[in-house]
Amino acid sequence: MSKGKIFVLTGPSGVGKGTVVQGVLKNLNNIYLSVSATTREKREGEKEGTNYFFKTKEEFESMIKTNEFLEWAEFAGSYYGTPKIQINNYLSVGKDILLEIEVQGAKQIKEKRPDAILVFLAPPTFEALEERLIKRQTETLEKVKIRLKKAKEEMKEISLFNYLVINDHLDEAIENVSSVIKAERCRIG
Amino acid sequence: MSKGKIFVLTGPSGVGKGTVVQGVLKNLNNIYLSVSATTREKREGEKEGTNYFFKTKEEFESMIKTNEFLEWAEFAGSYYGTPKIQINNYLSVGKDILLEIEVQGAKQIKEKRPDAILVFLAPPTFEALEERLIKRQTETLEKVKIRLKKAKEEMKEISLFNYLVINDHLDEAIENVSSVIKAERCRIG
Repeated sequence: MSKGKIFVLTGPSGVGKGTVVQGVLKNLNNIYLSVSATTREKREGEKEGTNYFFKTKEEFESMIKTNEFLEWAEFAGSYYGTPKIQINNYLSVGKDILLEIEVQGAKQIKEKRPDAILVFLAPPTFEALEERLIKRQTETLEKVKIRLKKAKEEMKEISLFNYLVINDHLDEAIENVSSVIKAERCRIG
Repeated sequence: MSKGKIFVLTGPSGVGKGTVVQGVLKNLNNIYLSVSATTREKREGEKEGTNYFFKTKEEFESMIKTNEFLEWAEFAGSYYGTPKIQINNYLSVGKDILLEIEVQGAKQIKEKRPDAILVFLAPPTFEALEERLIKRQTETLEKVKIRLKKAKEEMKEISLFNYLVINDHLDEAIENVSSVIKAERCRIG
């Protein structure tokens, strides 16, 4: 049996990674979403084990110490991380896995797993991203400002990734990310 | 304006390259089919300038001498070649171009244009290919035998190409080749 592949969807906070991921999972078979651990507060409608494994700061730091993460990052005051165990379980039985993670974490994946395929999801313009973050109203304007500053830095690093998909029209973005996965499954070597 | 990309669909004779190409062209915008020159006999329904530019042996050999081909090959007793001029015209205005060519020619393209993206279309089994070639009834059994022997050799060279698409279910094969093109348009670098 051939081994599964790791696909990573990353991009600035607020660019729409979650919505694109949901569309991609509807389009494709044999790909599973990695569930991250986080210390950030649960948003309305989010479910433990589906959206995230919600951890306290102490729990998360203990998992870092015992080397349980494939990648982890601190972002806008919270920890986010990908537990190794679920990834290895899927890959070993030939299933592909999709990670939706922040840019810092994606860079760690690239270092540790050069075979992972990284897709950077970018907003059509920086102004569009600002608008989306403000509309989301899940954070104080202070936190939005921090995220925007971070996004500007992250977008300078696009060249580190394998694919760039612009999230201008949602359907097109979903289609393009799905195509990357389908194409990579046909890639030789 | 960014430059266009060259996509090459290759694979053994009789594998169904032409049918897949037609499906891909229906799916996608901004990609143009390169029309090859050939000395082989025109089949029923084929049109000059649409399917091929039909040439005499003398005309073709004169074009080889004046270096007018990006690639050319002799295959099952006929010449096939890709005139350079149309390719360069499309690429220079940022259009992608799709070439449907024999394996020998595809290997030449890879040498001359390492930036070209090569997709190898393979039959699900060798027996399926044999059946298809015999059903086609466009050639003598003698010529079918030559094509089959060639196909066996070509399939050993799959690792030279970028992508492998199995033409088992036509819709899936068209979808996979289309995905390769869409994904490569998002590729960074």
